[in-house]
Amino acid sequence: MDELSLHQALSGKYRIISPIEVTSDNLSLLYTPGVAKVAQACAEIPNNTFLYTRRNNVIAVISDGSAVLGLGNIGPYGALPVMEGKAMLFKEFGNLDAFPLCISTQDSDEIVKIVKALEPSFGGINLEDISAPRCFEILRKLDTEMTIPVFHDDQQGTAVVVLAGVINALSLVGKKLDEVKIVVNGIGAAGYNIVKLLIEFGAKHILACDIHGILNSETSLHDYHREIANLTNPNNVKGTLSDALKEADLFIGVSKGNILNGDDVRKMNKKPVIFALANPLPEIDPNLAYENGAFIVATGRSDFPNQVNNLLAFPGIMKAAVEKQKKITKRMLVEAAITISKSIEPSKEMIVPIVTDRRTHISVYERLAHM
Amino acid sequence: MDELSLHQALSGKYRIISPIEVTSDNLSLLYTPGVAKVAQACAEIPNNTFLYTRRNNVIAVISDGSAVLGLGNIGPYGALPVMEGKAMLFKEFGNLDAFPLCISTQDSDEIVKIVKALEPSFGGINLEDISAPRCFEILRKLDTEMTIPVFHDDQQGTAVVVLAGVINALSLVGKKLDEVKIVVNGIGAAGYNIVKLLIEFGAKHILACDIHGILNSETSLHDYHREIANLTNPNNVKGTLSDALKEADLFIGVSKGNILNGDDVRKMNKKPVIFALANPLPEIDPNLAYENGAFIVATGRSDFPNQVNNLLAFPGIMKAAVEKQKKITKRMLVEAAITISKSIEPSKEMIVPIVTDRRTHISVYERLAHM
Repeated sequence: MDELSLHQALSGKYRIISPIEVTSDNLSLLYTPGVAKVAQACAEIPNNTFLYTRRNNVIAVISDGSAVLGLGNIGPYGALPVMEGKAMLFKEFGNLDAFPLCISTQDSDEIVKIVKALEPSFGGINLEDISAPRCFEILRKLDTEMTIPVFHDDQQGTAVVVLAGVINALSLVGKKLDEVKIVVNGIGAAGYNIVKLLIEFGAKHILACDIHGILNSETSLHDYHREIANLTNPNNVKGTLSDALKEADLFIGVSKGNILNGDDVRKMNKKPVIFALANPLPEIDPNLAYENGAFIVATGRSDFPNQVNNLLAFPGIMKAAVEKQKKITKRMLVEAAITISKSIEPSKEMIVPIVTDRRTHISVYERLAHM
Repeated sequence: MDELSLHQALSGKYRIISPIEVTSDNLSLLYTPGVAKVAQACAEIPNNTFLYTRRNNVIAVISDGSAVLGLGNIGPYGALPVMEGKAMLFKEFGNLDAFPLCISTQDSDEIVKIVKALEPSFGGINLEDISAPRCFEILRKLDTEMTIPVFHDDQQGTAVVVLAGVINALSLVGKKLDEVKIVVNGIGAAGYNIVKLLIEFGAKHILACDIHGILNSETSLHDYHREIANLTNPNNVKGTLSDALKEADLFIGVSKGNILNGDDVRKMNKKPVIFALANPLPEIDPNLAYENGAFIVATGRSDFPNQVNNLLAFPGIMKAAVEKQKKITKRMLVEAAITISKSIEPSKEMIVPIVTDRRTHISVYERLAHM
């Protein structure tokens, strides 16, 4: 069965059901007149909704469809099957109820207003597939102005799993994060947060590149590019991606397919580590990378070893955040990454667990729920 | 177990689950990379979301908490347990997935904007417990500006079940709708629509009353009061509710408890019919009404015979409207009322079916799905 037939046969990737059979007997407790007492309890103390409603375990998966998968700005209708899938994964691996909400505006202020207005119904918000740089401001505002946890998986989830992979990869090549030279290519939602989380965890030598080459004080496009240039490039080094890769220990690509060649890999330091995470086509074919000396190669794909996919992070992080009603902090993200990295005995072909490894999901949840 | 303990034990009155077990094998079809093809199909033709996502069977139950049950403006947190209950009933009796969304603004324009922005995720909208007169404008705008069906149960659902009860009650007393004198007391969301639907179905002699007495050209408070006064009171009759009841055949109260006494009932025509629908306290105690000559008494309560409750209407109406993607029309409401009235052999103590009668719910759905 192909994708379209499967989706048609399923008729949607979620169902909303009741946890109890409704009978003439319990109807007067579950609904009128009995529910009035529950309604009053929640009106008097809004946090009682965490006690008496599903708010203790439900999040909205929210997208405006502006940056869906690798498809770009396909709008909210195109985003819906993806958000349904995401909601399904939150349930499957985090035991968190998640409802897909696709919004028909791409005005950032409108999105912020709408999501804030929905706060009474949810215990958390997962933003998804919202384009940069809009997603930075939307996340920052919602995180500040809402009392429930707000997470943007493309920013934070990806950075967590990349850090987990980096921790294990560097341990396998016997190098230290604060000593290695790292090149991050593609400074969007993911790249921006990868750079920041690597720095948070101790990285000292990062060059960030975009389509124009090494980010420096002149080539920057947006405020957030300038921020990354300031953070990573105090000497204002200029040059191409290829220049940046000279003597680099670690390449992290969250950009687009087939932009590296064998020469690029051979320029790197001994035992080079390549994270070629562009989907569906990696920045370099893993076999080509290995042929040119790569020691470890990770991609975003499930059909190669070392799949670096944010599915490893988001269910456990959000389950803990919603249950404990904790805002997402950098420390939580770092702890999630460490937990993921520790949840396996790493090897060159297994620097992170497979995405369906339930022990990892439970470990992330438990670590974050108890910190 | 009392209401609060039951709600706490349930931890919310819904669960969101997946219709299929997620495995390493189907993950690539249900999510990336396979879902990309489905996303593109929905982006190109938005109506494909009805084919490939749950949009074909899911509605939002939306409230701003401004008029919850008989509790008044208790806000969105107070409304949440009620909306969860409503969503549960949509599933139980209409097999429709329904998600409770409580919105933290009571600005009508904001509500309209928010609900419209959520259109891509839903196949229909059920408005709930929004105060009059705001609910009229909100319903009108959403119905006009959205392509999916929009229903306001407090307005339309109540009117449908009242009409169903009126049809059977008048048949039992051997009177005709276009000949009887009807008094409707309480012109809010429900009363306004009851008057309009009765007129649509042929009623010719209605007096509408509010707290100041018979609605006429002078006592009207709002535009919609004036509209009802114009529709019902061409001779500009003035007086109290008690005056209106003289020789009346049918009283319909959607107002507040204990406002009628025995004298009021005795003023009415032979075989008077009393719909005392205020909750939790009816406009008159049914026993007192019977003692003073009432022939048929209906209330909103489940512990008296003849419970007139919109639960009889909303699941079937919305299931049909969402499945067939039909906007709600007056004709649909009238057909729903006729179907409900025909779904039982009426008697004085059973002018409408009990609310949990699944045959009625299926009949309403089937009639509306095939008209």
